[in-house]
Amino acid sequence: MGAPLAVLGLDPGSRVTGYGVVREQSGRAELVAVGAIRTPSGGDMAERLGIIYSRVAEVIREHGPAEAAIESVFVSKNTASALKLGQARGAAMAACAVAGLPVSGYPPTLVKKSLVGAGRAEKEQVAFMVAQILGVRNPGWPLDASDALAVAICHLNERRLRKLTGTP
Amino acid sequence: MGAPLAVLGLDPGSRVTGYGVVREQSGRAELVAVGAIRTPSGGDMAERLGIIYSRVAEVIREHGPAEAAIESVFVSKNTASALKLGQARGAAMAACAVAGLPVSGYPPTLVKKSLVGAGRAEKEQVAFMVAQILGVRNPGWPLDASDALAVAICHLNERRLRKLTGTP
Repeated sequence: MGAPLAVLGLDPGSRVTGYGVVREQSGRAELVAVGAIRTPSGGDMAERLGIIYSRVAEVIREHGPAEAAIESVFVSKNTASALKLGQARGAAMAACAVAGLPVSGYPPTLVKKSLVGAGRAEKEQVAFMVAQILGVRNPGWPLDASDALAVAICHLNERRLRKLTGTP
Repeated sequence: MGAPLAVLGLDPGSRVTGYGVVREQSGRAELVAVGAIRTPSGGDMAERLGIIYSRVAEVIREHGPAEAAIESVFVSKNTASALKLGQARGAAMAACAVAGLPVSGYPPTLVKKSLVGAGRAEKEQVAFMVAQILGVRNPGWPLDASDALAVAICHLNERRLRKLTGTP
């Protein structure tokens, strides 16, 4: 099976950035770390982005994931919220790139399909499957962290699939 | 007048991020550094964001600005381009925040008004005034860099104004 691969999943937002580190051990996904980076709601934007960058860099240093995954497409109400979301994503992705981690993007429907088997699953269904896959009963983590774990698991699945089918 | 204050102006974009460092010396604005960070057009987004972050951090280390300024509002065609622009801004602003620089945002109309005297000036007019203010003939820098210098000069102007009027 090769050395265990740890993957960092990210679900960035300007207020809450979910993160999860999942390791593949003998073909099974194991939970390494999970959490949510919360930024002060009163603080200014640059300060928040600095916190997101620093905390993501810290998680990488602490748990040593070799690759990162993030949802690639999103639905945004308007350009102002897209800009805000983009800023949070930019800070988080920059932290991965500076640490040398390649970042793979997956459309939300693929993440859901990879976990639940359907592209239109509810957030709660995804959270339930994430806990099932990782073998965790009564997970105490927030939904943002579930989404981060989901994209990390999706990346491990897709990676395995690519290996089996010989797709680069 | 106090110690000379150096300000970093930023005009982030996923392909080109303009930057300029301007120092206030005896009430006059002086050019310290100017340039454009270009990211490989074929490269993936995270890689680009890592380059933006690292180069902005490098400029800060090299020239030691104490504060940063950026245009705060923008017009974007659609949410996809807003997300892209946001990501570039996020990487650049995170670099400032991690280095301890406060980042002030100014609406484009205020930047133009501060330099040209009119809120609806053309990009070329702004570039011309930037060169005039800094006392540079035939500046060779690109327009993105002019915009970065413009927001840095605007910040120095606004700062001086706030000092004079006693506004915090």
